[in-house]
Amino acid sequence: MIEQVVNILQQDCKIHEQGLLIVGVSGGPDSLFLLNVLYECGYNLVVVHINHKLRPEADEEAQYVRQAAAQIGVDCVVWEVDVLGFAEKHKIAIEEAARRLRYQHLFDQAQQRSASAVLVGHTADDQVETILMHLLRGSGLVGLRGMQTCTLPNSWSEHIPLVRPLLFTWRSDILQYLAEKQIQPAFDQTNLDTAYYRNRVRYDLLPQLEEYAPRLRQNLLRLGQILSDDYQLIQRQVDIAWTICLLNHEQGYLAFHRPNFERQLPSVQRYLLRRAIEGFVPGLTDVGFECIERGRKFIAENKPSGQVDLLDGMRLIRDVDVFWLTSGDDLPISAYPQLKPDETIAIPIPGRSLLKNSWVLETEMVADNKQAIEQEKRNNDRYQAWFDMDKISLPLVLRSRESGDRIHPAGMDGHSIKISDLMINQKLPLRARKNWPLICCGDKIVWVPGYRQSGLATIDKQSTSIAHLILVRKLST
Amino acid sequence: MIEQVVNILQQDCKIHEQGLLIVGVSGGPDSLFLLNVLYECGYNLVVVHINHKLRPEADEEAQYVRQAAAQIGVDCVVWEVDVLGFAEKHKIAIEEAARRLRYQHLFDQAQQRSASAVLVGHTADDQVETILMHLLRGSGLVGLRGMQTCTLPNSWSEHIPLVRPLLFTWRSDILQYLAEKQIQPAFDQTNLDTAYYRNRVRYDLLPQLEEYAPRLRQNLLRLGQILSDDYQLIQRQVDIAWTICLLNHEQGYLAFHRPNFERQLPSVQRYLLRRAIEGFVPGLTDVGFECIERGRKFIAENKPSGQVDLLDGMRLIRDVDVFWLTSGDDLPISAYPQLKPDETIAIPIPGRSLLKNSWVLETEMVADNKQAIEQEKRNNDRYQAWFDMDKISLPLVLRSRESGDRIHPAGMDGHSIKISDLMINQKLPLRARKNWPLICCGDKIVWVPGYRQSGLATIDKQSTSIAHLILVRKLST
Repeated sequence: MIEQVVNILQQDCKIHEQGLLIVGVSGGPDSLFLLNVLYECGYNLVVVHINHKLRPEADEEAQYVRQAAAQIGVDCVVWEVDVLGFAEKHKIAIEEAARRLRYQHLFDQAQQRSASAVLVGHTADDQVETILMHLLRGSGLVGLRGMQTCTLPNSWSEHIPLVRPLLFTWRSDILQYLAEKQIQPAFDQTNLDTAYYRNRVRYDLLPQLEEYAPRLRQNLLRLGQILSDDYQLIQRQVDIAWTICLLNHEQGYLAFHRPNFERQLPSVQRYLLRRAIEGFVPGLTDVGFECIERGRKFIAENKPSGQVDLLDGMRLIRDVDVFWLTSGDDLPISAYPQLKPDETIAIPIPGRSLLKNSWVLETEMVADNKQAIEQEKRNNDRYQAWFDMDKISLPLVLRSRESGDRIHPAGMDGHSIKISDLMINQKLPLRARKNWPLICCGDKIVWVPGYRQSGLATIDKQSTSIAHLILVRKLST
Repeated sequence: MIEQVVNILQQDCKIHEQGLLIVGVSGGPDSLFLLNVLYECGYNLVVVHINHKLRPEADEEAQYVRQAAAQIGVDCVVWEVDVLGFAEKHKIAIEEAARRLRYQHLFDQAQQRSASAVLVGHTADDQVETILMHLLRGSGLVGLRGMQTCTLPNSWSEHIPLVRPLLFTWRSDILQYLAEKQIQPAFDQTNLDTAYYRNRVRYDLLPQLEEYAPRLRQNLLRLGQILSDDYQLIQRQVDIAWTICLLNHEQGYLAFHRPNFERQLPSVQRYLLRRAIEGFVPGLTDVGFECIERGRKFIAENKPSGQVDLLDGMRLIRDVDVFWLTSGDDLPISAYPQLKPDETIAIPIPGRSLLKNSWVLETEMVADNKQAIEQEKRNNDRYQAWFDMDKISLPLVLRSRESGDRIHPAGMDGHSIKISDLMINQKLPLRARKNWPLICCGDKIVWVPGYRQSGLATIDKQSTSIAHLILVRKLST
């Protein structure tokens, strides 16, 4: 029994005896057992008790925990919290308010003392109830796997794990252990007020279900374990898909590559959307299935543009091959090079020209003809180009498109195409067309960055004056 | 409603209107609805009714189905089966016997008529009950995803799918549809005898659970759908892992690469073992979690050899870096080159020498010195070697090891090592050591295939008479 707890600490959670552990102790049998076992194993502990002030005996219980800690010479911190006020302020249920306050104080304490972990006493019975409640509520794999022995990162910390070492220990064994050691809990933590949903599940539903399946509790506990491991495998695949599908991740939006997203299995698509939405609003969990499916359906639609509301003001916006998750009112456009409306910039060579949203046009002269030809041949960056400056009359200018603009692309025998047609054919995002930077020389367009270079100033072996232009986004590092 | 059914047929199952469909019709509302919808959509049908002869009204029901089919001009086949006899013979429950006989006859009929699919009328309600029953029974992801709209291959056929087009149609909608069309089912299929487990789940448990979660049925139906897709993702990864871990697959055993297996996530390891065991015994499903975990624990143990019983006479046997799944009494050894006990073979050059289990030693002379040196340098096959025949006195002989055997490996300055030590150090499987083929010349060992070549006859630029030896398993193609 103790061995199982220590195994979880050492093997699952990599916690060894040197560090300081914060233990949440309510005074009930589970947390008292946890405190006892950790103390006997020689761990370095601080007891934290949260006095919810919800029941008449709350102060008495706090006093009891103080004494229990004092008896074994362990530091004890008691926090009194205003659950009702917090619940009212955040418009949440009392149970949820108590939970949030509890973890907040446990992790505050852990932070202050540079503890290695926060430990709480959830048992196998709690786990079974949690899994069953998630099942009833319609949760998928995430919920059905139940609580984890070691959660990091968690909602409260990026580096201090939340550890549940009793997740495979049954309450009946705990009670027997305490009885044998003659340890008397402050109260029976298993609150008999069945008005609470969890207690109804515990006292009414589980016994009813056991009439159909006598080994139900063991089965559900095992189910959680199996599905946790399945989930780990799935998340590894979702991690890979995430890097394949995510184009940009910035304040205010996430941009995804739609064709790559569409190539993923339905399961992966759901987890990707879930991760995007939950990552977008810290603390948001439990995004509904309908919301996810609404998103998937929208992304799969065969339309060049559009948008759909998800939840909490979050929307998906589509622009040809890209879709964005955003909650802002401005459409995110910073991922594209853009000029200000009606802006014209004379391009210094060599030099740097600043565009909107940290985009920069950098220019240089390349002395070595061979090197320039080789670089151009190997180039994969749509935002780089080389020009034979002897074929161009200076200055080169950056401006946005004008009605009737045309380009004579290289290799098209002098035929020209309309810039507006080019932008449509190349699926240049609609919103980005108006202020897309064009590189011009007089009334000739020599380059539509990202899409097409004119044949006017292409370099060859005879070129002696070669300019190299790079359009690049310089995000502050 | 009809659209949903057609969508499943066409999109999930790729079934179009040309082929012949076998429809299982009991005469109850679900299958009658299915028959009706398929008929209205213009599919080419054959009705199959299985008369289980278990209830007094069975013959009447069979007659009813005949009439219903005749009315719409569809062929109808009625099979009378001996459920009780079958159940007794195979020592299975009556429900399971009825199920097996039913599908066997449906697929026999499909086979005979070259049908494109077998269709049955399981509804969303059946699905919810199935998922709940699997949950109670302790099933993992495989069971919790419920029944599939299209199962291929299935237990009865490799190429005819089992299709369940009503899996997202609720029974209440079916009843309403039938009432509107004034179609009267032969009986209410929903048997009221709650002695059967499924009926207890249907009439007692589900309504109880709905008091805790009013949307439980919808939630469970959706859960099945989500987990089916998750399962698809997992199986794709397991497919990859299978090819990485499986060494040999032959009659009587499967051989796996233990280090590669150990590198897999716990979830993948479980699915691999499950697939191996279930593939080993056709028709076996529902391998218990304990059995799988017993296998995993055994494979993870840090011992060079050993074995563990799994179930039904199946065992895992370990031999250093390989583990085998087998049910035979003889240990599988055919994956290694082996001589018969006390066998000696004079090696013809050029020529072929036959060893046990389709292993062959092939020899040839290489005329081109440069080519031989180049080949030897690039060789990665432990079962190939090149010899300077001028340094060897013929004949070369194949024999197994004798006490005191030693080899003088190349590059060891004339020092020799004992063959027995070499075999231990190189982790040559224990069972394979005794009859491992050694290539000898007089009392000198010139090659331990797979492990070490002697320095006696190594080739160099001066070699003019070079022999090339390949030991290879030639499985019949």
